[in-house]
Amino acid sequence: MQTPWDYRYAQRTQRMKASAIRELLKLTEQKDVISFAGGLPAPDVFPVEEFKRACLYVLDNNGAQALQYGSTDGYVPLREMIARYTNRLGIGVSIDNIMITSGSQQALDLLGKIFINRGDRVLVENPTYLGAIQAWNAYGAEYIPVALDDDGMDTRVLEDALRKGPKFIYVLPNFQNPTGATLSLERRLQLIELADQYGVPIIEDDPYGQLRFEGEHLPAVELLDSQMREKNNAYTGNVIYLSTFSKILAPGIRLAWVIAPTEVINKLVLAKQGADLHTSTFNQIIAHEVGQHGYLDRHVKLIQDTYRERRNVMFEALEEQMPDGVNWTHPHGGLFLWVTLPEILNTGEMFKEAVAQKVAYVPGENFFACGGGTNTMRLNFSCSKPEMINEGIARLGQVVKSKLIHR
Amino acid sequence: MQTPWDYRYAQRTQRMKASAIRELLKLTEQKDVISFAGGLPAPDVFPVEEFKRACLYVLDNNGAQALQYGSTDGYVPLREMIARYTNRLGIGVSIDNIMITSGSQQALDLLGKIFINRGDRVLVENPTYLGAIQAWNAYGAEYIPVALDDDGMDTRVLEDALRKGPKFIYVLPNFQNPTGATLSLERRLQLIELADQYGVPIIEDDPYGQLRFEGEHLPAVELLDSQMREKNNAYTGNVIYLSTFSKILAPGIRLAWVIAPTEVINKLVLAKQGADLHTSTFNQIIAHEVGQHGYLDRHVKLIQDTYRERRNVMFEALEEQMPDGVNWTHPHGGLFLWVTLPEILNTGEMFKEAVAQKVAYVPGENFFACGGGTNTMRLNFSCSKPEMINEGIARLGQVVKSKLIHR
Repeated sequence: MQTPWDYRYAQRTQRMKASAIRELLKLTEQKDVISFAGGLPAPDVFPVEEFKRACLYVLDNNGAQALQYGSTDGYVPLREMIARYTNRLGIGVSIDNIMITSGSQQALDLLGKIFINRGDRVLVENPTYLGAIQAWNAYGAEYIPVALDDDGMDTRVLEDALRKGPKFIYVLPNFQNPTGATLSLERRLQLIELADQYGVPIIEDDPYGQLRFEGEHLPAVELLDSQMREKNNAYTGNVIYLSTFSKILAPGIRLAWVIAPTEVINKLVLAKQGADLHTSTFNQIIAHEVGQHGYLDRHVKLIQDTYRERRNVMFEALEEQMPDGVNWTHPHGGLFLWVTLPEILNTGEMFKEAVAQKVAYVPGENFFACGGGTNTMRLNFSCSKPEMINEGIARLGQVVKSKLIHR
Repeated sequence: MQTPWDYRYAQRTQRMKASAIRELLKLTEQKDVISFAGGLPAPDVFPVEEFKRACLYVLDNNGAQALQYGSTDGYVPLREMIARYTNRLGIGVSIDNIMITSGSQQALDLLGKIFINRGDRVLVENPTYLGAIQAWNAYGAEYIPVALDDDGMDTRVLEDALRKGPKFIYVLPNFQNPTGATLSLERRLQLIELADQYGVPIIEDDPYGQLRFEGEHLPAVELLDSQMREKNNAYTGNVIYLSTFSKILAPGIRLAWVIAPTEVINKLVLAKQGADLHTSTFNQIIAHEVGQHGYLDRHVKLIQDTYRERRNVMFEALEEQMPDGVNWTHPHGGLFLWVTLPEILNTGEMFKEAVAQKVAYVPGENFFACGGGTNTMRLNFSCSKPEMINEGIARLGQVVKSKLIHR
């Protein structure tokens, strides 16, 4: 049925497309499908008991505040907790540099809202996080994709991309979504130097940095950048840093944060006032109650142990089940790994067959801002228990093998 | 300190201004100021015990789902509850017509995102809800203000405004923010007929409709519109309807909803995916748990009784304390009333003196999309206890009287 609204959509609405992934995920919701498609944290390590304790405590002691409107920038004790957490990593921030957002997706949206004019270019890894593309398409962004390998964004080709005049660089340095790649220390330094040379600022999206279960933690791009600038007495604040409670507590509470120069935070606060007034006071106070007194650190260890085991199971299963010519990344943390099949295979076309065989993944081409990657796929290892991973990869191996035979 | 971000703001960011109200509210946060400025529900009627029970029940029985990612359109049982609640009012909707938003502010933002091109005009009441202006300014909206009196938007001057080509009409028919005015039944019908005649659709924002504590409930504009269209066999879906749990449960959980034609909902879902993925699963499941089995109805009665008493106290206090020439609206529900002072007074200029006398309000000019109303103010009666209302209005009366004497 037609309504007068049909003729009234804004220009930008034409650019909003249904996320292919969300459509795919619907197919994988049948109970007997083993899905490596979602980006879900493991629900079996959600701190349910801690949440119960916190809910009771907060409602008993602070119910009127928890259920009332709050300030747009966020609950002060939570921002103080984040400031402490961040300063431990060496980045010096105060609560005036921190705004709470309703998930990192909102941070991406608000950054798009305050920075992107129609036609502005954003330099992104290729492939990159789909949610950023989705948020920024609404503001008319164009993309400059830069190749990425096991060491993250390939800084050897970065200079060419910077010459194309991006408004900013968007980088996921740790256990990148979708590939699991981590930007090496050397490349972090090159990225910072080149960005400085061309005067282009950086958005560092770091949802998984705490989820390293192998190897040494690498300093944040923001930290390296501010160290370099202090040494050179240059302006600071070149890097805006995003992180989230979704992967270290629970995504269902929709809590994340932005760290930025105060001036940028002020603009973000204005944009957020118009977008949702503020993030749930209740969830902010609960998260603070759960996360304080070192609980976050202890809980992150449990997550690391769980994910390490599941990744290892997936590595072994892939080794065992995949035919020659199939390669995958070896992430030291995070939720995902990235599989590259022989070029003659198309993971988009193969998807239906995989679901028929009761296993699912995300076809890699969804993550390329300007096309490509038709022979790649993203696998999530965090959300399935070991026996399911073994069974699922066995099914996936069969699908790949049968495809190779039939060509 | 300058950063490279300073030179990179988008054009639309210039139109984002600090909400004068939010700035004012900071001044009123001193403990001894009696503030009628906020738009806060009464915290003393928040259902804290019900929330405790619901949190325990949900985390015990459904913790993994409550803390996990959820779907963008919202938690199905909550949407079913809203559909039942709505259908009781006579409007026939299914869950496919309902999307959950992170507060009504997000609904306004997403509607702006999908409908408003730079320069598009929106027909608004004069004065109107500031949050809508704030949301839509970011998309470059212009406004066509239509005068409003005790019976709501003045439909006698509506036709002239409709000839100026608005993309849609924005109306708050019940206990309007800021004036407390309610659109009469006669004017509702005129609004619908004129809107139909000019082919202009309507956004009906109804956060306070359930909070009627005097007189008869009036049918929603959406209901009247669909009745007329059914009779005429015309297209349906001319009205998009917004409401919220902020005023009937608690604002701190940031839960509201949009009712719209399925096609519009689909676009809103795309926009919401990019904006915050989805609204807190935890809060949605808790709100459903609290609200079901008729609890909402019982709770709303308690709110009505509380607000009725407070409004009456404010009426009496105004009668007693205000000098001749001061008038105010007599709302039958909601949270606000609207005071008009003699024209020689300016409530913006008077504000500092009021705060010095430890009482606060919102100067009315903030609610006028295109200026005006310098002698008006919005008073909130829901959030202060009766003795505070008496004391606060006495202080305010003194300020007004002293201003009149000194002119």
